Amino acid sequence: MGKNIESNLANTPHFNPLNPQEFRKQAHEMVDFIADYYQNIDSYPVLSQVQPGYLRANLPQNAPSLPESLETILEDVKNQIIPGMTHWLSPNFFAFFPSTVSTAGFLGEMLCTCFNSVGFNWIASPAATELEMLLPKSFMFQGTGGGVIQNTTSEAILVTLIAARDKALDVDGSGNLNKFVVYASDQTHSTFAKACKMVGISPRNIRLIPTTIDAGFSLSPIQLKAAVEADMENGLVPLYLCVTLGTTSTTAVDPIELLAGVAKEHGMWVHVDAAYAGSACICPEFRHHLNGVELVDSLSLSPHKWLLSGLDCCCLWVKNPTVLVKAQSTNPEYLRNKQSESDSVVDFKDWQVGAGRRFKSLRLWLIFRTYGVVNLQDHIRSDVGMAKIFEDFVRSDPRFEIVVPREFGLVCFRLNPDETFGSDYTELSNQKLLDWVNSTGRVYMTHTKAGGIYVLRFAVGATLTGDNHVVAAWKLIKEGADALLKTV
Amino acid sequence: MGKNIESNLANTPHFNPLNPQEFRKQAHEMVDFIADYYQNIDSYPVLSQVQPGYLRANLPQNAPSLPESLETILEDVKNQIIPGMTHWLSPNFFAFFPSTVSTAGFLGEMLCTCFNSVGFNWIASPAATELEMLLPKSFMFQGTGGGVIQNTTSEAILVTLIAARDKALDVDGSGNLNKFVVYASDQTHSTFAKACKMVGISPRNIRLIPTTIDAGFSLSPIQLKAAVEADMENGLVPLYLCVTLGTTSTTAVDPIELLAGVAKEHGMWVHVDAAYAGSACICPEFRHHLNGVELVDSLSLSPHKWLLSGLDCCCLWVKNPTVLVKAQSTNPEYLRNKQSESDSVVDFKDWQVGAGRRFKSLRLWLIFRTYGVVNLQDHIRSDVGMAKIFEDFVRSDPRFEIVVPREFGLVCFRLNPDETFGSDYTELSNQKLLDWVNSTGRVYMTHTKAGGIYVLRFAVGATLTGDNHVVAAWKLIKEGADALLKTV
Repeated sequence: MGKNIESNLANTPHFNPLNPQEFRKQAHEMVDFIADYYQNIDSYPVLSQVQPGYLRANLPQNAPSLPESLETILEDVKNQIIPGMTHWLSPNFFAFFPSTVSTAGFLGEMLCTCFNSVGFNWIASPAATELEMLLPKSFMFQGTGGGVIQNTTSEAILVTLIAARDKALDVDGSGNLNKFVVYASDQTHSTFAKACKMVGISPRNIRLIPTTIDAGFSLSPIQLKAAVEADMENGLVPLYLCVTLGTTSTTAVDPIELLAGVAKEHGMWVHVDAAYAGSACICPEFRHHLNGVELVDSLSLSPHKWLLSGLDCCCLWVKNPTVLVKAQSTNPEYLRNKQSESDSVVDFKDWQVGAGRRFKSLRLWLIFRTYGVVNLQDHIRSDVGMAKIFEDFVRSDPRFEIVVPREFGLVCFRLNPDETFGSDYTELSNQKLLDWVNSTGRVYMTHTKAGGIYVLRFAVGATLTGDNHVVAAWKLIKEGADALLKTV
Repeated sequence: MGKNIESNLANTPHFNPLNPQEFRKQAHEMVDFIADYYQNIDSYPVLSQVQPGYLRANLPQNAPSLPESLETILEDVKNQIIPGMTHWLSPNFFAFFPSTVSTAGFLGEMLCTCFNSVGFNWIASPAATELEMLLPKSFMFQGTGGGVIQNTTSEAILVTLIAARDKALDVDGSGNLNKFVVYASDQTHSTFAKACKMVGISPRNIRLIPTTIDAGFSLSPIQLKAAVEADMENGLVPLYLCVTLGTTSTTAVDPIELLAGVAKEHGMWVHVDAAYAGSACICPEFRHHLNGVELVDSLSLSPHKWLLSGLDCCCLWVKNPTVLVKAQSTNPEYLRNKQSESDSVVDFKDWQVGAGRRFKSLRLWLIFRTYGVVNLQDHIRSDVGMAKIFEDFVRSDPRFEIVVPREFGLVCFRLNPDETFGSDYTELSNQKLLDWVNSTGRVYMTHTKAGGIYVLRFAVGATLTGDNHVVAAWKLIKEGADALLKTV
């Protein structure tokens, strides 16, 4: 009967959405489309000027029944999608922290998409696991530690928090989460409190310790100690400390060594969130910010922020992965295999939230090899240098002030406080200036509030930004200030 | 002074890792490399034959100081990486569930990487948010519901569990998680129990209700009811039910309508995990599996499993996003903006674990438009058709049996139980057959255990698989059986 079935098979070709010839042709078209986009990116308004709901009116809301051509679709990308983009890769993007990219990162992503391997365990994709283990030796698979690529800092905090929680629950035995307390500064990224709530830490037990402008918005070890002691007197259990290297608002640096000293006295898990500033530590002149790192339990940094990788890419190092793996491991029959059972391999599904995972290390590997350490250091230094240029511009204009000293690629500044009209007025003037600058589409900056002060943030780091863009941005800001202060 | 600084700027070009000309040249090279890979993929052993640790011996462990050429790097990809790949895109890949891809999905991913926009809120990337809201109307933004693209099912379960937990905590007021109970079948993906533990559900309160082969490994509403009632008698609170459409082991389908009926009597959150089989419901002949879906709170399906999107892509629909958003929202000053505050827009950071997110909808949008519904249905049907061919082969050979009836693209089969030597012997024979088949590198299948039975899984769905590959795989399996049964 087998034979009959075989001979009955129709030889009509199936629908093949991965025909190599067609792939080659269309992917080449897409490369040219993208290269053109990069070439013209200067000409687009960096902050999108569309109104909410704009797309619904312009694109069909249902999938078409029949195929459409790539040309038709790319026309829609040009006419409907691109006008609705806030162009993160524009050289005039100085908002948030830029998300840096590179040709090598792009090629790595293409390779990752090409293989589309699902590396939940070693056997499912040996090269994917092993290349990730091989990334620079600071990944520490030589000793007892280990490293893994997460999507975002949120996930890095989530998995380490869970490891810390489950370790503490094991010791405690009561199964009661309500006694655990976590600590960070009030400048810590909002994702920290979110992750704490996700894992069941009571919002009442999340201590965001106040910082001051005088201390550069850095977390004080003395205040941490006081908070921990007060909690312990109340019968609570200190669980986890999140130290930040380069806060989102102002790039404040918490002192790792002193803080870890306090936390370790009480057996807390110490995590360093170095999402932004960690990348700068590839340059020796910034490395002192890592002093004391040997005391901590885990550290994460996001190469998509400042190491040219594109989204998503967050490296997490853990001193004792056993605890982390114990908390997240699963062992379903359909994934069992000899290599995993012999403990000779790492199965990364047990280091993260999801089961499936892409071949994430390819991007970093291509970046390291394509550019080499020398160029990567040059890239960090040139961003810092451009931020310094901007800082000097601000200092040279008596209408402005620098709010906190610049350390990396972010300049925090504002129009001077107006003593006659008070702080609300100052805030409003700065808001107006920001809105005007952004409305031109020629520059995009954002703001923050730190220590009650409304601050303008000028973050240098978009991959295509050069000195000329910084100069033009400053001219525009001055122009805005001229107009604003004239009308007052 | 401003003038002086400007005139002092050195006009030396910075290191530019996104030079458009260089990008164009190298990306074209990469397209050809990838197209060649697809053209030759048939020739690689589908299951990698390397040993643990192979890569460490062959590649440098540190980033180089100076740049290396793309040619050198691609040589290493060819000689070091590719031999260590288990080729998920090989037409001879019948393991796990295949992770399907397409040219359109690839192009969508290239565009997503191109823009590299970080769509945490609307203003940061209006088109990214709006296109995601526009995806087929089943995303339901017309009514009170909404949809969002997560990375994986694990995250979809995590965020809905947290929503359910926090809603229940609000009602309860005690802050005590230890009373909440969650339910699923023992066939549910292991990621369910993992997610439950992550959010603080006590492992004692995770009910994985036994299923039987006679009921096709489907969760019984009667047993669910009994379990729920027993828990309530013990003072526990039913929280969450996970219903599966197409389990990982055997593609069993839980009856949504009946199960949701039981769960809703007790106010539970009902989630449908349709990761694999949900995609089949684009064909009318499979849609009855969704009967009762109007009763549930959320549903997720993963287009990377069967809708050609490549990794990662998991669509989550939620009936009442307010609860979900309330549980995960954050509102830091540095992300505040007029549009978010006027509530006129959706900020997807509040629908997921992480803050940052890529322009994830582009891939699906390109797939829907490039192929149209007609071709996508054809793709599902052709996979099911090939699985049916394989099933007929198995049925035609008296040495084999089908373990559970085939419903989608997965065939669960084994060498017949051997009554003389007992079940351990049967398991061993099947294991040996599987190991032999996989060791040839010509086919990759995996196994599972269901109802205590060791089952061989033949999952059809890799994008490049055609009838001829199924025929060749069956021949190889028969060859293995011939050799194995001869030596006995």
